[in-house]
Amino acid sequence: MITGAILASHHIEAFRQIVGEQYVFFDEESLNHYSHDETEDLHYLPEVVIKPRTAAEISAILKVCDKNKIPVTPRGAGTGLSGGALPHLGGVLLSTERMNTILEIDERNLQVTTEPAVITEVLQNAVKEKHLFYPPDPASRGSCFIGGNISENSGGPKAVKYGVVKDYVLNLEMVLPGGEIIWTGANVLKNATGYNLTQLVVGSEGTLGVVTKIVLRLIPHPKHNLLMLVPFRSAEKACEAVGAVFRAGYTPSVLEFMERDALDWVTKFVDNSTVKIEEDVQAHLLIEVDGNDMDVLTREMEGIADAVQEFDCGEILFADNAQQKAELWKLRRKVAEAVKANSVYKEEDTVVPRAELPLLLKGVKDIGRKYGFNSVCYGHAGDGNLHVNIIKGNLTDEQWNGSLKNGIKEIFVLVKKLGGTLSGEHGIGLVQKEYMSIVFNETQMRLMRDIKKVFDPNNILNAGKIFDV
Amino acid sequence: MITGAILASHHIEAFRQIVGEQYVFFDEESLNHYSHDETEDLHYLPEVVIKPRTAAEISAILKVCDKNKIPVTPRGAGTGLSGGALPHLGGVLLSTERMNTILEIDERNLQVTTEPAVITEVLQNAVKEKHLFYPPDPASRGSCFIGGNISENSGGPKAVKYGVVKDYVLNLEMVLPGGEIIWTGANVLKNATGYNLTQLVVGSEGTLGVVTKIVLRLIPHPKHNLLMLVPFRSAEKACEAVGAVFRAGYTPSVLEFMERDALDWVTKFVDNSTVKIEEDVQAHLLIEVDGNDMDVLTREMEGIADAVQEFDCGEILFADNAQQKAELWKLRRKVAEAVKANSVYKEEDTVVPRAELPLLLKGVKDIGRKYGFNSVCYGHAGDGNLHVNIIKGNLTDEQWNGSLKNGIKEIFVLVKKLGGTLSGEHGIGLVQKEYMSIVFNETQMRLMRDIKKVFDPNNILNAGKIFDV
Repeated sequence: MITGAILASHHIEAFRQIVGEQYVFFDEESLNHYSHDETEDLHYLPEVVIKPRTAAEISAILKVCDKNKIPVTPRGAGTGLSGGALPHLGGVLLSTERMNTILEIDERNLQVTTEPAVITEVLQNAVKEKHLFYPPDPASRGSCFIGGNISENSGGPKAVKYGVVKDYVLNLEMVLPGGEIIWTGANVLKNATGYNLTQLVVGSEGTLGVVTKIVLRLIPHPKHNLLMLVPFRSAEKACEAVGAVFRAGYTPSVLEFMERDALDWVTKFVDNSTVKIEEDVQAHLLIEVDGNDMDVLTREMEGIADAVQEFDCGEILFADNAQQKAELWKLRRKVAEAVKANSVYKEEDTVVPRAELPLLLKGVKDIGRKYGFNSVCYGHAGDGNLHVNIIKGNLTDEQWNGSLKNGIKEIFVLVKKLGGTLSGEHGIGLVQKEYMSIVFNETQMRLMRDIKKVFDPNNILNAGKIFDV
Repeated sequence: MITGAILASHHIEAFRQIVGEQYVFFDEESLNHYSHDETEDLHYLPEVVIKPRTAAEISAILKVCDKNKIPVTPRGAGTGLSGGALPHLGGVLLSTERMNTILEIDERNLQVTTEPAVITEVLQNAVKEKHLFYPPDPASRGSCFIGGNISENSGGPKAVKYGVVKDYVLNLEMVLPGGEIIWTGANVLKNATGYNLTQLVVGSEGTLGVVTKIVLRLIPHPKHNLLMLVPFRSAEKACEAVGAVFRAGYTPSVLEFMERDALDWVTKFVDNSTVKIEEDVQAHLLIEVDGNDMDVLTREMEGIADAVQEFDCGEILFADNAQQKAELWKLRRKVAEAVKANSVYKEEDTVVPRAELPLLLKGVKDIGRKYGFNSVCYGHAGDGNLHVNIIKGNLTDEQWNGSLKNGIKEIFVLVKKLGGTLSGEHGIGLVQKEYMSIVFNETQMRLMRDIKKVFDPNNILNAGKIFDV
């Protein structure tokens, strides 16, 4: 894919001087390993992989690259779904993986300061030991890095009650493409001091700088939770029930939607599933409430059960014990893998105002009929965030790589019409940027491009992601 | 204050054509009225006051100003405390006051769309009728505009549990200085689609564009609350008790700190206060919990009372009924007015990580002794946001306008050392910008200035606020 080598041997030598010879890689295996992330079947070889340990080393690397206009692709765990970590221009693949220390859990201030390559679940468990809670929880939490979560403004199932990554980030240390190391804000809960650089960097997909330290706010960990799985005879009715839960005054800690095929495939994909799906069931909602008082939670669960009954649901499965809860969670978390194992697919990360979900689902199916594709939909219905998995099935390669694009465009035109946008939590990266013009006009794009230039005048850092400059 | 007229009669004529003659003012009374906000005793006369009704009118006005490099100062209700709405360069004062309609309360999606000049309390009451809650709640909520709250990223007493304005803004319609009208995002709860322009605009103090429509998320309104006033024999101990409440696992909906003088002055300022302050009391905490279950709230209150007992507190006043609650809230909300009525003062809006409050308070008093000033401190202790009111008292005008500045600088140096920053919720505006270099280095300032240029290349919109370009 690379049209010609960008790096010269003296660049490589400079990188070795900075990080040590053992952390500069250009063997075939390494280059291959870093040529892809979890996005479809895409591969782009970098010319070199560098694994720095400190912000100072990253600063020195970026100075060399900036001076020589060498493309740099920063990378966390490579679990991204929009191609943000793909080194599509060759050049330097900058892996943060060695920066994996939790620096301080500040119990006095309910904050944690961490390096970017800490695995999200590791961070969550470390703060949980102190009875503290960091809620954002992508499906890949067992392997993704907190730094990648910052770059994508990740969400996950708890976002419906607790918000997404942006709602927990207080302050970031980052290295600018020119090499300057800055903090974006302060370690405070309220801040009205200049522009909010922190929030500008969250979700900027590694295009504005390389994040090297992260300060997150934490909250007290809720002591209890209750979980239930509600089957519905109509997928659209299930979507309608979502809005009813909130209108009844409840804010569940999880409100997930799964179409029949999603749950069907995943129960076959995992071993020993005890969940049975009745013939006439078309979709499920997985609903959790959490808090400190079991009596209150029980009443909330009963109230929610009452609210959803009106939408033609079947027998509700209440997960009574830890084992049952773990099984339901395993099913939900493995859905993406199960879909992947079942067929070649493309995942679109649509998001609309919550009450528009039934219209979105109906529209996706209509568009599918028009273009001849099936889809399996699931996701964070409480947030209006629906993952539309388009299944290759019997489509020819020509259809798959050609006319399908028009179908996807129609989905996004519908999303926009419903007040939504392209991505709730997966980002734009490389593979979604062609759809940006559906939701943004030239003025909005101009602002984003010009902000990119403020941070990265030579356009070396993750160039060609989100948009072309 | 204006060195020379910037406007020519053909500009005035153009403005009249755009908004109608009756909404273009240059009589002395109008110019005087818009020459000040609530910031100290500062006055700057604009050359003309314009009161547009629509985004299209604002667009046309800004096009004239941009072409002719005429300074424009946008203004909400003029309740700001950092001089953000002061027309210090003359030119056009653009009042949004006629854009005061709540456009839609969307009960299906728990969102409200509003014009900027709706009074915050009016908006809160309108959504409360639908059992919905918009928590950000500045002390001036009875007169401030929601648009001004967006510009300053306002907070208020509920921020400790519910967050600040930025946590509720989903999408903004704004007019850029060049006249283009854009939306900053989408009406969704999660968004990973390009740079977060919405969050960049929140708190940007009217320097990036004029906000003309605002989409806010809402939450179900909690059904009950309980309130208590806790007296302490030491102000520092009161600050220490704040951290203990959170460490005990509670998240109160309000946790306010008031030094003795603050409560003392305000009980005298309001009529018929029934609150008695014991001789040996040096500070108070006002603590509220809210939720849907009274038993739970009662247990939380008891738990919080236990947690604060260890910090040498006196007899706790539990507000048992609506009247008592109203009185305590009136006292808290009137503190600023009472201080203002008592003496000439300067208010510094410091913010630090919560647990550093005792050190901040001690430091402020030490610096006061060094520079010979008294201070009255109060504010949102749960957020680490302390309003330091420096009292003129016996200081000469020379000291007040001269050497005091060094004392204020020392306070901000301390704030920075404690991990905090200049402003939690009042903004930087005109009067705090000289302190920006204490918390930001040249690179950070360069980024902010260059972002300003992206939005406002001719530097016409609220120029010279936050920083000089």
